Amino acid sequence: EILARLGARRNGALAGRRVLITAGPTREAIDPVRFLSNRSSGKMGYALAWAAREAGAEVVLVSGPVSLTPPAGVEVVAVESAAQMYAQVMAQVTDCDVFIGAAAVADYTPVTAAGQKIKKHRDRLQLELVRTPDILAAVAGHRPRPFTVGFAAETERVREYARDKLARKGLDLIAANPVGPSQGFDRDDNTLWVLWPGGERDLGTASKRELARRLITLIGERYGQENSTENSR
Amino acid sequence: EILARLGARRNGALAGRRVLITAGPTREAIDPVRFLSNRSSGKMGYALAWAAREAGAEVVLVSGPVSLTPPAGVEVVAVESAAQMYAQVMAQVTDCDVFIGAAAVADYTPVTAAGQKIKKHRDRLQLELVRTPDILAAVAGHRPRPFTVGFAAETERVREYARDKLARKGLDLIAANPVGPSQGFDRDDNTLWVLWPGGERDLGTASKRELARRLITLIGERYGQENSTENSR
Repeated sequence: EILARLGARRNGALAGRRVLITAGPTREAIDPVRFLSNRSSGKMGYALAWAAREAGAEVVLVSGPVSLTPPAGVEVVAVESAAQMYAQVMAQVTDCDVFIGAAAVADYTPVTAAGQKIKKHRDRLQLELVRTPDILAAVAGHRPRPFTVGFAAETERVREYARDKLARKGLDLIAANPVGPSQGFDRDDNTLWVLWPGGERDLGTASKRELARRLITLIGERYGQENSTENSR
Repeated sequence: EILARLGARRNGALAGRRVLITAGPTREAIDPVRFLSNRSSGKMGYALAWAAREAGAEVVLVSGPVSLTPPAGVEVVAVESAAQMYAQVMAQVTDCDVFIGAAAVADYTPVTAAGQKIKKHRDRLQLELVRTPDILAAVAGHRPRPFTVGFAAETERVREYARDKLARKGLDLIAANPVGPSQGFDRDDNTLWVLWPGGERDLGTASKRELARRLITLIGERYGQENSTENSR
């Protein structure tokens, strides 16, 4: 931690701030061999961790299973399931100034995971799923709460869904990106536009690293404004 | 292909043979974002492709989504779903002498994949699954058929299940390995024992590369014997 503090920039947009970021997919076990998951390379979350670190923050990255090398100076907590990610985030939420939920958390998980590999006797199978804990809503609802940033990866009506998610979950900021066969997942570039209560900004299309830098700068601005204008939270 | 032929060893256990190998997991789309999959790093299949190439074979590797670099001189066909893997294997099966099914093919897939991301309105969700085509049984049942090798990754009663699978699918050889929290997946070492009609051999515990070499040597022996004693197939 001393090394991490020494490495951080003292004059960056998030200098001295503690930033908690989630990244990657989660895996929900059906049995020891099979699982449910989401398409997510983790690249955006890892780029954000890098950019937040560059901006002077102390960064904790709670990461699902990905094949990426963590940025230097970032503390990584490896998790697998949505339940594990939830537990790790809630254990750290009180101590952080900014939370960025960039993980593609599975929103459904099998009701029960079989201890042994399920034998395939039948032609059809019904898999019973239940909702996972909503990490983003739980962070936004926590008191004291960090400046809370979510992502909305959508295949259609991206802006409308993002604006709805911002309000419904009580977020401070949401980054929306269109996903599809040629956009978003497993790619190095991305398109983002950002919405907050009363405003929005197009961050354009660029490499995930460059977009991460722009988003972190914007978060620094918005976080600074909110902290100077409303101390009532 | 000329380069591939030049690079292959002329005196190896599979010199001049054409070997088709499947590797990695498959992903079965639930919608554009969510999928079902299996734990498989693809390391064993990639190690087998390398070892078969070392043994002089021309190698085609049909690979699900993994983050591995293909061995030099091996032709790679990238697929995602079980249905795609089935189609690519069946397109090549007539031309190959040996087939090794090392992929962890999903055995169930959603009845229908939603074109748009499913909205999570409900607390519970029923996912209706159907069996995927059985690639190994289809290859073993094809005429003419290659020397057909399967894998059995099991969490319990490994040898018994493997012997049963060998007979049920009409394979020439099966490589059984125990899997669990500390064995099999995402690891560089592995434990294998090999069964065929009327015999078996313990290949021990070693790196996946070393086990692949031992297995390819054994396949070369068994393939040679079957081809010299039974020409009736």
